[in-house]
Amino acid sequence: MVIVMKAGATEGQIQHVVDRLRNFGLKEHISRGEERTLIGAIGDERVLRTIPINAAPGVEKVMAVVSPYKLASREFNSEDTLIDVNGIKIGGKKIAVMAGPCAVESQGQITTIAKAVKQGGGVILRGGAFKPRTGPYSFQGLGDKGLDMLAEAKTETGLSVITEIMGTEEVDLVASYTDIFQVGARNMQNFTLLKALGQTNTPVMLKRGMSATIEEFLLAAEYILSYGNHNVMLCERGIRTFETYTRNTLDINAVPVLKNLSHLPVIVDPSHATGRRELVAPMAKAAVAAGADGLIIEVHHEPENSLTGDGVQSLLPDQFEKLMKELQRIAKAVDRDMYI
Amino acid sequence: MVIVMKAGATEGQIQHVVDRLRNFGLKEHISRGEERTLIGAIGDERVLRTIPINAAPGVEKVMAVVSPYKLASREFNSEDTLIDVNGIKIGGKKIAVMAGPCAVESQGQITTIAKAVKQGGGVILRGGAFKPRTGPYSFQGLGDKGLDMLAEAKTETGLSVITEIMGTEEVDLVASYTDIFQVGARNMQNFTLLKALGQTNTPVMLKRGMSATIEEFLLAAEYILSYGNHNVMLCERGIRTFETYTRNTLDINAVPVLKNLSHLPVIVDPSHATGRRELVAPMAKAAVAAGADGLIIEVHHEPENSLTGDGVQSLLPDQFEKLMKELQRIAKAVDRDMYI
Amino acid sequence: MVIVMKAGATEGQIQHVVDRLRNFGLKEHISRGEERTLIGAIGDERVLRTIPINAAPGVEKVMAVVSPYKLASREFNSEDTLIDVNGIKIGGKKIAVMAGPCAVESQGQITTIAKAVKQGGGVILRGGAFKPRTGPYSFQGLGDKGLDMLAEAKTETGLSVITEIMGTEEVDLVASYTDIFQVGARNMQNFTLLKALGQTNTPVMLKRGMSATIEEFLLAAEYILSYGNHNVMLCERGIRTFETYTRNTLDINAVPVLKNLSHLPVIVDPSHATGRRELVAPMAKAAVAAGADGLIIEVHHEPENSLTGDGVQSLLPDQFEKLMKELQRIAKAVDRDMYI
Amino acid sequence: MVIVMKAGATEGQIQHVVDRLRNFGLKEHISRGEERTLIGAIGDERVLRTIPINAAPGVEKVMAVVSPYKLASREFNSEDTLIDVNGIKIGGKKIAVMAGPCAVESQGQITTIAKAVKQGGGVILRGGAFKPRTGPYSFQGLGDKGLDMLAEAKTETGLSVITEIMGTEEVDLVASYTDIFQVGARNMQNFTLLKALGQTNTPVMLKRGMSATIEEFLLAAEYILSYGNHNVMLCERGIRTFETYTRNTLDINAVPVLKNLSHLPVIVDPSHATGRRELVAPMAKAAVAAGADGLIIEVHHEPENSLTGDGVQSLLPDQFEKLMKELQRIAKAVDRDMYI
Repeated sequence: MVIVMKAGATEGQIQHVVDRLRNFGLKEHISRGEERTLIGAIGDERVLRTIPINAAPGVEKVMAVVSPYKLASREFNSEDTLIDVNGIKIGGKKIAVMAGPCAVESQGQITTIAKAVKQGGGVILRGGAFKPRTGPYSFQGLGDKGLDMLAEAKTETGLSVITEIMGTEEVDLVASYTDIFQVGARNMQNFTLLKALGQTNTPVMLKRGMSATIEEFLLAAEYILSYGNHNVMLCERGIRTFETYTRNTLDINAVPVLKNLSHLPVIVDPSHATGRRELVAPMAKAAVAAGADGLIIEVHHEPENSLTGDGVQSLLPDQFEKLMKELQRIAKAVDRDMYI
Repeated sequence: MVIVMKAGATEGQIQHVVDRLRNFGLKEHISRGEERTLIGAIGDERVLRTIPINAAPGVEKVMAVVSPYKLASREFNSEDTLIDVNGIKIGGKKIAVMAGPCAVESQGQITTIAKAVKQGGGVILRGGAFKPRTGPYSFQGLGDKGLDMLAEAKTETGLSVITEIMGTEEVDLVASYTDIFQVGARNMQNFTLLKALGQTNTPVMLKRGMSATIEEFLLAAEYILSYGNHNVMLCERGIRTFETYTRNTLDINAVPVLKNLSHLPVIVDPSHATGRRELVAPMAKAAVAAGADGLIIEVHHEPENSLTGDGVQSLLPDQFEKLMKELQRIAKAVDRDMYI
Repeated sequence: MVIVMKAGATEGQIQHVVDRLRNFGLKEHISRGEERTLIGAIGDERVLRTIPINAAPGVEKVMAVVSPYKLASREFNSEDTLIDVNGIKIGGKKIAVMAGPCAVESQGQITTIAKAVKQGGGVILRGGAFKPRTGPYSFQGLGDKGLDMLAEAKTETGLSVITEIMGTEEVDLVASYTDIFQVGARNMQNFTLLKALGQTNTPVMLKRGMSATIEEFLLAAEYILSYGNHNVMLCERGIRTFETYTRNTLDINAVPVLKNLSHLPVIVDPSHATGRRELVAPMAKAAVAAGADGLIIEVHHEPENSLTGDGVQSLLPDQFEKLMKELQRIAKAVDRDMYI
Repeated sequence: MVIVMKAGATEGQIQHVVDRLRNFGLKEHISRGEERTLIGAIGDERVLRTIPINAAPGVEKVMAVVSPYKLASREFNSEDTLIDVNGIKIGGKKIAVMAGPCAVESQGQITTIAKAVKQGGGVILRGGAFKPRTGPYSFQGLGDKGLDMLAEAKTETGLSVITEIMGTEEVDLVASYTDIFQVGARNMQNFTLLKALGQTNTPVMLKRGMSATIEEFLLAAEYILSYGNHNVMLCERGIRTFETYTRNTLDINAVPVLKNLSHLPVIVDPSHATGRRELVAPMAKAAVAAGADGLIIEVHHEPENSLTGDGVQSLLPDQFEKLMKELQRIAKAVDRDMYI
């Protein structure tokens, strides 16, 4: 951490900062420039993060040198983390595709779609039973019954499943059904939930908050990791920008950035990010070309009848099957392969 | 709702949309323009919100005519909602100021600051016992013990209190201590929590999410209202933009916009929004000039020692007292008054 | 400037950076921490700004210590700059209001409005002759004829005038008519234009670009200042955010921030920023409460007939007159006064 | 265009809007819903764009049905536009790569890099002679001399060239040297410049403004097209978001969106967008996978000595050559090919 003193800072103010640093077990390193005096803090910078050194008199600003997350960092683990989901290894050479409807709507719907996903080459079935909806008057999911339907579809197809977890009360229940917990973008900083998930062994797919920086995203993952669950995958699902043509702006840059900064697998959701069916295929291809370890894609056999209003971004089964073949070609062009 | 058909939409596609509308109990009104055919849906538009009409063949886009929230809207209640907190009426002519530290740190700290808040003219004491922190290694609050300290400070000063609620498990506990629940920006779309708070009678101050639109903010309030708790106040606390000089961008525009669209009281938090002590006073004045019903301001007698790293934005007791006098002048200039 | 070396940087890489600094006449100050080595550059940091030190091997990042603008900074001039426009001193204790239509549309229109502006207490008449429009099919302004009409309105009322300059070809022409050049948000980084205006003596009101940071805004002002024209005022006119309810988000925070960082006068445009008539008054009041030195407000006597589509945000003459009286009260509440 | 009347709009207000529409040669189509009356405007909606119908009493909002650009739209031209640059057809099946330094710095520099670009398979040489720089104290380019050096490098290698145009004064000069005009992001809405370029025949590569929506971007292209120059290519170069890890956020979504909405070629600039060398390759691949027609990439043989501070994002010649081979594989995986 580097503390920049104001232009007219007094010796007393400088000494005061030095004393503070020493109190916290750090050493100082003073550098007197022409315009400003800088004080470097030597030691564990993380100690300093929670201390408002910038509230001390004469301090202009404080600049962090190292990142505030540790377990999630590439420095902590130079090897890519592999997460084993019933034999599917997420984070390795083979790209895994999760697919299915936004919400479980009926046994017939989820089973039909599960078969289409399997047919197309998907290896994990998605489907929400508990749904976070922007307004209270929208369909809120089938809850427990939805989980039962998902289980039935899993049995019929042999696919693993991923479903959303919204609150701590449901952690045990959902854990008994799902192979992967999905944490939605709106809950990325629901720290109570993250701590609870950190105490399970079930893999977690953490979606990036709509306006979360990369650093905040990795810090949210750090919550889960620091409570003991190391099976965390990161999901880029679009950030909020000024552009309104797409629902959100899928931030493909986040893929190589996260791969550089962290050892955790990176999944991309082109469906929710764009909110437009015609953009799902090109953005899925871009994600694979940029280095994504997996994709999560909405598929529905009757998009017009979907209860969540998300039909507009769902692929039809034959569109999904076609896309999977195209993705296979991209995967090979970047020396990867696909679970198919 | 107006459904815009694509330029080359067929009669069959138009009829299909009409049939869908009728299925949902709505009537259609077709308008054939030179470039596009429009279909107006007559009836309760809210029924349509969750139906993916835009997934029907030949549909270019769907445009909403009315807002998706109801109980929170000015149309539902043309009178300003007044929320009575132990005799303080929030939302009326008199502006209420909530003040105190970011977090309860010790009995001495909270009592000292509570006295300063009372001395300065604040009527509600803020102080977090459960703290949402961006990273897991930061001070997470004193929890239950913090609530006890807050209660003691309340007893000593007679101030009402506001404190944060982070999870559904703590609703009963926190309700037994607090006069107002504070829902943080990161939890604005924690729908599980909103539903739980909607089932209490305790007033709720809902903070706007960092990237929440006005519509999403009012829909989050609608969750609480629709579950039966009508004592909701809205708190603008800064939105995330590209600007990095301030921690967030305090959106003063939201004050008159929310007052126009809704009957709920509007509170402004200039401390967390700006993250800079020197900006708290001018932005607090701007908020009152723009029509805010209340303010929530951080005050700390020893900012350098605050455990949350937020000392840099806290006012010292004498700065707070001075600001309150300045605010009184602004309040009178807009024909308001202050609880002081 | 502080250069942060990567965790595993070699002595050779450190020495290479040191050599580079010395080549540019700077001295180094090396600080070896537990995780990183930092190299402070001592001397004129501005020399280093254009040198890609971060392209050197082993460098993780480079952190700036001082701001890149100089003439615009408060450190350069601790006194507020006063700009004299025919006796009106912008930047002093008295707040100046500029008002008028978006565009000059006819002699009758501009003269009628000019009289209303004068009647209401405005001291400077705004009106565009050259108009930057988002699309080529919109009304592009009356050009030279518009300038003549503006001149006539000036003669009739005695008001000073401000009008937009769009290109270098028109600098001399517009200078012969206007008292203040207005540079629009879209031209804030039209450096060719800024350089040309820097070579005149006419005051310039520089509007903040829609996505310009405070630093970029001050650097754009620095262009004009560095070419010799010291009569620059800064105009906050709304930034682009994710919120769509208002046209832009008027960033009131920018007012105290700019007043702290710079000595230049700060003007606020609540009309273009919000794009909604009902928000102009509350936001104008907020601007004055936050410390603005002036306002620029759209007034039109027949908003429905305005040719620029901006009628929706224009105040009617009686609304303007009423607002001016309200602003007078706010001004006094912050120990300012108004030219009225 | 659909005009939504307020809930309590009177018959007189409705009739007033109808009269206004008829005045402009449009027909009305009234739809009386349960909550609102809607008025559809039938005829050329573009006529209405500049008329502030929303300023009429009783109007709540106005919703556009068709896009405001015409010549740039896919509806205007369903065939992809091909732009011929000395035999290179941009916008066709083969992807064209432009590469070179940010700025021309010396004859040796530009010639050396030009040879490396040719060697790697680039077909167009980039290099700025007139440089838009955020601050006035940065290197502003070599001007005329830089153009001469660029011409010499062109002669030596046979590559076509692209260079930036900053002001109308230089249009003729630059046209005599360059094969493609580059309009920078900061000048995307410099309408004076766009009009001047519209009157030439030289191809123009228009960069998207940092906070320009897709619609504004296409309207800026429309300026050039409407003045008669049909050789316009669109360049996505990163938008401004809240994320600070990358310089800007390269919006890959814009590639398929622009290809859907427009017939113009789409180029992507991964170098300026990300500002980080290690991200150039993955983002270039993502762009090709998503359907880009070309790329513009920074290459420098001595990045540490680049005068623009942009060395940090430049590829070394061998990195460029390696990337070109990787891109070739991606191009084939999406049934495209490359000029190489």
